[in-house]
Amino acid sequence: MNTKKSEENNNKKGITTREEDYSQWYLDVIREAELAENAPVRGCMIIKPHGYALWENIRNELDIKFKETGVANAYFPLLIPQSFLEKEADHVEGFAPELAVVTHAGGKKLDEPCVIRPTSETIIYDAFSRWVQSYRDLPLLLNQWANVVRWELRTRPFLRTTEFLWQEGHTAHAAEKEAEDRCRTMLNVYQYVAEEKCAVPVIPGEKSASERFAGAQQTLTIEAMMQDGKALQSGTSHVLGEGFSKGFDVTYLDKEGKDQHAWMTSWGLSTRIIGGIIMVHSDDKGLVIPPRISPIQAIIVPIWKTDEEKVSVFAKARELQEKGKEAGLLVQVDTSDEARPGPKFFEWEKKGIPLRIELGPKDMAAGTVVAVRRDTGEKQNVQEAEFSSFVSETLETMHKDMFEKAQNFQKEHTYSVDTWDEFKDTIENKPGFILAHWDGTEETEAAIKEETKATIRCIPFDQQEEDGVCVKSGKPSKKRVVFARAY
Amino acid sequence: MNTKKSEENNNKKGITTREEDYSQWYLDVIREAELAENAPVRGCMIIKPHGYALWENIRNELDIKFKETGVANAYFPLLIPQSFLEKEADHVEGFAPELAVVTHAGGKKLDEPCVIRPTSETIIYDAFSRWVQSYRDLPLLLNQWANVVRWELRTRPFLRTTEFLWQEGHTAHAAEKEAEDRCRTMLNVYQYVAEEKCAVPVIPGEKSASERFAGAQQTLTIEAMMQDGKALQSGTSHVLGEGFSKGFDVTYLDKEGKDQHAWMTSWGLSTRIIGGIIMVHSDDKGLVIPPRISPIQAIIVPIWKTDEEKVSVFAKARELQEKGKEAGLLVQVDTSDEARPGPKFFEWEKKGIPLRIELGPKDMAAGTVVAVRRDTGEKQNVQEAEFSSFVSETLETMHKDMFEKAQNFQKEHTYSVDTWDEFKDTIENKPGFILAHWDGTEETEAAIKEETKATIRCIPFDQQEEDGVCVKSGKPSKKRVVFARAY
Repeated sequence: MNTKKSEENNNKKGITTREEDYSQWYLDVIREAELAENAPVRGCMIIKPHGYALWENIRNELDIKFKETGVANAYFPLLIPQSFLEKEADHVEGFAPELAVVTHAGGKKLDEPCVIRPTSETIIYDAFSRWVQSYRDLPLLLNQWANVVRWELRTRPFLRTTEFLWQEGHTAHAAEKEAEDRCRTMLNVYQYVAEEKCAVPVIPGEKSASERFAGAQQTLTIEAMMQDGKALQSGTSHVLGEGFSKGFDVTYLDKEGKDQHAWMTSWGLSTRIIGGIIMVHSDDKGLVIPPRISPIQAIIVPIWKTDEEKVSVFAKARELQEKGKEAGLLVQVDTSDEARPGPKFFEWEKKGIPLRIELGPKDMAAGTVVAVRRDTGEKQNVQEAEFSSFVSETLETMHKDMFEKAQNFQKEHTYSVDTWDEFKDTIENKPGFILAHWDGTEETEAAIKEETKATIRCIPFDQQEEDGVCVKSGKPSKKRVVFARAY
Repeated sequence: MNTKKSEENNNKKGITTREEDYSQWYLDVIREAELAENAPVRGCMIIKPHGYALWENIRNELDIKFKETGVANAYFPLLIPQSFLEKEADHVEGFAPELAVVTHAGGKKLDEPCVIRPTSETIIYDAFSRWVQSYRDLPLLLNQWANVVRWELRTRPFLRTTEFLWQEGHTAHAAEKEAEDRCRTMLNVYQYVAEEKCAVPVIPGEKSASERFAGAQQTLTIEAMMQDGKALQSGTSHVLGEGFSKGFDVTYLDKEGKDQHAWMTSWGLSTRIIGGIIMVHSDDKGLVIPPRISPIQAIIVPIWKTDEEKVSVFAKARELQEKGKEAGLLVQVDTSDEARPGPKFFEWEKKGIPLRIELGPKDMAAGTVVAVRRDTGEKQNVQEAEFSSFVSETLETMHKDMFEKAQNFQKEHTYSVDTWDEFKDTIENKPGFILAHWDGTEETEAAIKEETKATIRCIPFDQQEEDGVCVKSGKPSKKRVVFARAY
């Protein structure tokens, strides 16, 4: 089942430049950083330790925030009776083509086939229908960390894979307004983790009707810009309205004793964000990890020639590591027996470790170390005594610099466009985001997509209202929306 | 797909006593503590927030220990090509009857069906065959936190479910001895977490050949005794020998440049342990959670009559909660609007929270609180100023007491037996563990199982050698082994 192509990529060496072939560059960065590789089943991936450590850190940051907003974790089954998906018409239409179906189990054909969850609204709301009886049971605020399977035609590691890891939050509320607020609160959490932890600037906003989650009445999104100018939808939050609560009979008795349907929300962020982090920060030398989520923040590379030197540089390296640890920093020592520093520098560079600390006999004699920033390549001597404070401050500076750099890139590649000719020219020749007026109809949106492959990424929350005319139809519009080609 | 019986249990109320019906007691404890409930697909369960929080705490304790021993986390795919399982003869024989098979996906019949992982040796060792080339790549020490599916005929929440959550560690080594040491190291981690965190005393030892993991050359286990005297296998660690490395071609060049097969180990601990925790500690009032893994260690229940009292007891409760938090304790306040304390006491009791702190106007006036231990029911007045130190010390005492109680129970229900009549009588009339001599043959083991349903749980590491004769065959034996009926 291994495709020829995926085997080739698993075995290739070196990193193609972004200019030469952006798509290949992305695959090369992943392979050389040992983040992931293709698995035997089509479109699935193996997340290797370095990639998984990134996911663990993102997961931990999100989990803390979820719990702060009152959400509890639970776990719902992987397998869903096929009939469940049919209880919400839009939902089944959206997911039916991507389902993986278990028809046989325990050596027998099943009476009713099960699907592997592509998302868990149906199985979770079936439980909600039992758990929600009275207004006292609301709000119900749950999240699960899980794997899901969607049989995608075109897959790319992290960005779109047959199986992926994610969290999916599901809440039920008595009032529509409360559901809307929860939906927005969780989008804010996504924006916070993307920007403050992953240094990925995002545009938060609302999806147009045609880009909504299957079954939602409102979908909010954070959209990030990759270095090829394409957009990546990096996390979404939905108000599901009453579609699911009607399909699954999630009703409660209100304070007046009247039967009411609950208002639901769901929201998810997946391993896809790792693809975004790679494509926002990395360079032609390989991965660049934002320091706040890096599993190793500073790697000490000992340099030696004689055995005696080796013993003393390693002792000093361990001492610095301990100091770093005491200051709450993730410092590691390269313990490889390889004496040549070059290959070791190269390896940690490809792996995107924020700071490289070089430590040789001459540095020891001078009471200093050499620190090299992964993002800028900037090199400087640091007094041993200032090691921890230097690392700590530099990591913070790097986070800010990486965020600003990405934000500037996004600004420089965002074009305010007013005519259709300009739109077509921009989308072809200036990859990035287009801010343009749109008449609000699905027809116009579809026509623009058909002709340019650009979709409405979102209607940004902070976009000022202004009088304008739709870039395609010429009809009146009150607000610019973000168009882009997207992953 | 909901079976009548599981629906009934989801809706039942109250807790059956252990004496009346031990099996029903177990189900009642789970339902009333809101740990889990049956899912629509046969044998699957929904792990509710209170149950999942227990799993999170166990997971965190294990994860810390794994990382301390040099193991890194990774993630391998859920779906395995069916042909992979056939590469190790014993392995496929063991798992084939329990497989769930995906035959259709993306609207089409698959060329080769996939199975949902029942365990991941095959998919992981396929990757190892690419990753392991030289002795420098060894040891390779990985773990994954994952869900697995085994289509079991008889299921019970936590103890045996179609889908369960677990961790599975997989390592490859250059030397057999190193693999054996790793296997033992990980069993020690399991014993540590079972005893030191879950307060569940276990007997570590080796499995007999017929009880080994399918494909292993050695299986180590920790066995715990439930309150009905049955054994629960609570974690296992395997030396896989060269069976898998031959089947999957995991070879490396040694220092002399010779091709060698790697030695593999795998080890797993699952949500099953929660079933063990329930059955070791709980009582007829419901769940009793060991304090070191309890998501809430002390619950403050405010008591009031007037609105004025309510305001002041809540303020004091919050103050104590903050003090507890500062001391690193998991203290929560019952925020329910219910004024009667009885139903609230009852609820936290069923949920197994180690300490209940009652706080009413009279207590406030006296500058005290009332603390009630869940395990013993012991009640005492505590000075407000000593709140945190009292809670902290009492939790430690409770852990020790619960462990000792369980250990004494195990000792009291372990019988040294020398004749076959005595064996049969003991197994029928004195539920527990039997220490008896065994001739070391599969035939005798099978005959004992056939006649009494007792299996060899393990050959304990710390069992003294002594000359004896097999309780069944009369042939010579050097060591007693542990027999019991088991879950």
